[in-house]
Amino acid sequence: MEKMLLNNDLIDNDQMKLSINDRGYQFGDGIYEVIKVYNGNLFTPTEHIDRLYRSADAIRLVIPYTKDVLHKTLYDLVEENELVDGHIYLQITRGVSPRNHAFPIEPTEPVLIAYTQTAERPVNNHRNGVSAILVEDIRWLRCDIKSLNLLGNVLAKQKAHEANCYEAIQHRGEIVTEGSSSNIYGIKNGVLYTHPTNQYILNGITRQVVMKCCQELGIQVVEEPMTKEELLQMDEVFLSSTTSEITPIIKIDDSIINSGKPGDFTRKIQQAFEEKVQQVM
Amino acid sequence: MEKMLLNNDLIDNDQMKLSINDRGYQFGDGIYEVIKVYNGNLFTPTEHIDRLYRSADAIRLVIPYTKDVLHKTLYDLVEENELVDGHIYLQITRGVSPRNHAFPIEPTEPVLIAYTQTAERPVNNHRNGVSAILVEDIRWLRCDIKSLNLLGNVLAKQKAHEANCYEAIQHRGEIVTEGSSSNIYGIKNGVLYTHPTNQYILNGITRQVVMKCCQELGIQVVEEPMTKEELLQMDEVFLSSTTSEITPIIKIDDSIINSGKPGDFTRKIQQAFEEKVQQVM
Repeated sequence: MEKMLLNNDLIDNDQMKLSINDRGYQFGDGIYEVIKVYNGNLFTPTEHIDRLYRSADAIRLVIPYTKDVLHKTLYDLVEENELVDGHIYLQITRGVSPRNHAFPIEPTEPVLIAYTQTAERPVNNHRNGVSAILVEDIRWLRCDIKSLNLLGNVLAKQKAHEANCYEAIQHRGEIVTEGSSSNIYGIKNGVLYTHPTNQYILNGITRQVVMKCCQELGIQVVEEPMTKEELLQMDEVFLSSTTSEITPIIKIDDSIINSGKPGDFTRKIQQAFEEKVQQVM
Repeated sequence: MEKMLLNNDLIDNDQMKLSINDRGYQFGDGIYEVIKVYNGNLFTPTEHIDRLYRSADAIRLVIPYTKDVLHKTLYDLVEENELVDGHIYLQITRGVSPRNHAFPIEPTEPVLIAYTQTAERPVNNHRNGVSAILVEDIRWLRCDIKSLNLLGNVLAKQKAHEANCYEAIQHRGEIVTEGSSSNIYGIKNGVLYTHPTNQYILNGITRQVVMKCCQELGIQVVEEPMTKEELLQMDEVFLSSTTSEITPIIKIDDSIINSGKPGDFTRKIQQAFEEKVQQVM
């Protein structure tokens, strides 16, 4: 049977028993990460773990283990489940306490769960690109925290799926922020444009890798807010996320991007990303 | 042992076993209500149940029982637990499904849980009033939905508690919206001011009762946004919620309201509210 992590312990999946008073269940009072595994190896684990601790700080949740211990425990989980290709899902909540909005007065033990999932890389999407829709960004003003309050993202993604699209590109008023579970980029005349990392978007780990790839490729990056109109007039558009990696966007609402084909700069960034993946495989 | 509701069944509290794949746990993908019980009787249950179904509609969650069945089941829970004074907590999530932002493709059975809690009425607060702080409202743009995405409310309430205050009054920019778990009212020259019910606040059930009380008392009500500055210059300020009922606010940050005493209009509204409570007792 597959194992999962409950705090420091590897347990059988069916032994897991959550409390209804887990603050994750009644308040979404917790944070999470998704870490990609290639050929049994974690990709950018340090970056994900660092961000997890930053999210925890931002909601003032104290993770009761060191980063090193957590890192090792995640490796143990992957090994135990003999995961080859897929990802780890990991979340930590503020723990179990009778319902009350404010933090528990008696300190609680945070509840960490983590499990693995086998998943193939979405190579067809990488090759052919995907479609997206534009939707109003109705989320809270701390999208830099990777929290369990995901209802806005859920509703946006659902709209995309019902429009037979892969992703919903969110905008606050005229300004494009990010996808419902991805960062968004446009390329115009060889320059890459993307929203700066502030409270309106998550600082994606794959985004950080994209930034490095651009640096290595000599592609100029401009981190400035862009409008919906500007996005639709880009030469190329793509998205990035841990599970989607670098996925070209070839259509947004009714607008065809780059004649409906992934563009050359996107291809170059995909290749540079692939080299980094190959390094851990 | 106390019983709780799991969907239609009354079960022992310790029999409850939640799945980590409950969408309430990983996305906060659900809605809730808190219903007050006075002397074994539910207060405004129809209004709470109606709002629950409206919240469900707004996130497109289909509750698989009629309002009447749910109403009866909640009465059974109160009777079974012999609850005299306290409240029912009730939430429904979109159910159990492997993690994916979009709604599950295979329809899932929503997970309803409900439990009772004994609680005394906060009569000291009613009599003496409470203090509050002002905090920036960072929540999403659908605060009219009573959803499980409560991290913004949690962080606001925690700030209030750390300032030795009862409530955090939230504002978007200059405009006062609502408390972290209450609606907010000001009274100036005998006129009651409060935020209109739109996407920025929850249409509180106690707020609806307050509106009725004002009508019966002949108090003029103006439902218009007010600024922080205007709030601080009100003759009287109070908050309302299911568990706090009508609670005077006598201090906001460093500003003393009405010389630090509950005001006459607030007292009248408290009395009118009390009459409605007595009717169900």
